[in-house]
Amino acid sequence: MEKKETIYDGESVKVYATDCPDEVIFCYTDCITAYRKIKKAEIANKGRYCCEIADMFYRILEQAGVRTHYISRLSDTEIVCRKADVYPFQVIVRNVIAGSMAHRLGVSEGIRPANTIFDLCYSNAGMYDPLINDHHAVALGLATYDDLKAIYELAGKTNTVLIDVLKKAGIDLIDFKINVGRLSDGTLVVADEITPDSSRLWDSVTGIKLDKDRFRRDMGKLRDTYRDVYERLSKVFQEYDR
Amino acid sequence: MEKKETIYDGESVKVYATDCPDEVIFCYTDCITAYRKIKKAEIANKGRYCCEIADMFYRILEQAGVRTHYISRLSDTEIVCRKADVYPFQVIVRNVIAGSMAHRLGVSEGIRPANTIFDLCYSNAGMYDPLINDHHAVALGLATYDDLKAIYELAGKTNTVLIDVLKKAGIDLIDFKINVGRLSDGTLVVADEITPDSSRLWDSVTGIKLDKDRFRRDMGKLRDTYRDVYERLSKVFQEYDR
Repeated sequence: MEKKETIYDGESVKVYATDCPDEVIFCYTDCITAYRKIKKAEIANKGRYCCEIADMFYRILEQAGVRTHYISRLSDTEIVCRKADVYPFQVIVRNVIAGSMAHRLGVSEGIRPANTIFDLCYSNAGMYDPLINDHHAVALGLATYDDLKAIYELAGKTNTVLIDVLKKAGIDLIDFKINVGRLSDGTLVVADEITPDSSRLWDSVTGIKLDKDRFRRDMGKLRDTYRDVYERLSKVFQEYDR
Repeated sequence: MEKKETIYDGESVKVYATDCPDEVIFCYTDCITAYRKIKKAEIANKGRYCCEIADMFYRILEQAGVRTHYISRLSDTEIVCRKADVYPFQVIVRNVIAGSMAHRLGVSEGIRPANTIFDLCYSNAGMYDPLINDHHAVALGLATYDDLKAIYELAGKTNTVLIDVLKKAGIDLIDFKINVGRLSDGTLVVADEITPDSSRLWDSVTGIKLDKDRFRRDMGKLRDTYRDVYERLSKVFQEYDR
């Protein structure tokens, strides 16, 4: 399968067109950025660990009946996916208050509410991806109320499955963000990788951070941490893959 | 009725306790502020016009079956209200995209979506009253999902009634913000005045701004504008008051 023109040129993920109009290649890089790309680094093998982790999550989600854009693994750092028409907002799912939510609302990190929190962030780099609510999404023509209902259901199921698998790996799923889109036949899918770059993962016992916050907050050991997440998940994955 | 201690010391509205524990006095001042109180002025008679306008709106809403905290008019600038336990967020209702929403999302003012937009802003001055969604409100323990459903219903009814009365006065209701609260018997009420200080009102024909944006944007003629709104509404109100 040949990579054609670049469809999305992110720092940590690049997406390429292929010979097949309905298929794309997601390529995971060693680059990591934070704070609107002001902070930037290269971490050797990060791309490979993220690709491994995303690959396992996709297969576990599909096995649990959660539809994703995943087709197959292509290489150490590449995954072939169905092309999806992505909604122009990201969905953040939060089990514990942390990061930007804690910061914006002036509350401490680590509060675990009884409900699951869903955020929508409008994909508009010029406006720094602002938080929107359902009414804003509908008013801007980004989605209908029915779309949003289905999107929250998909994101909620994704959350349930990932909480479970991560728990078996001794990891608490604090939050994650995904893109959601429609395949050419209209099927709603998770159209985004889930990795320690796009989620918060805390060790279930020690509470140690096992995600990109180590980079954001200069906590070090990023490669070791990503490898640790990969190795823990690999063990758990063997059960799922039987 | 005697004013006792100050319960809320806003710039444009002050709220006082009274001899009766279930009743408070709202007092409308001539002071106007914007941009987190950096911009500030005194506009003679603004308090009286706002009091008159709020008074009419309360009576029209009550007549239409929308419950408010209103009891009676006390003076040119004072209204007696039932004391309400106010939810710690403001509800913004938008019929047309303008102001902070247009600014945050990078869209032009004046877009009229097919749906009504409801915003919640967490009443937290230290964090500059950030936008929150339903899940945030529930996670922070500010309200339940059932509370929010009832709150949106009340805000929506308020909107429907006000659109109608303002239309008769040749004014388009662009948006408004209110506090919502519970009376001691649990009744959900609009617990906030609605005036040109807390709403956007555009002339139906010319589109000229008839609200606090004239102050925010240095457009002048604020007192004349508020008097104009008051006079237009007074004529319409005579029909309602029969």
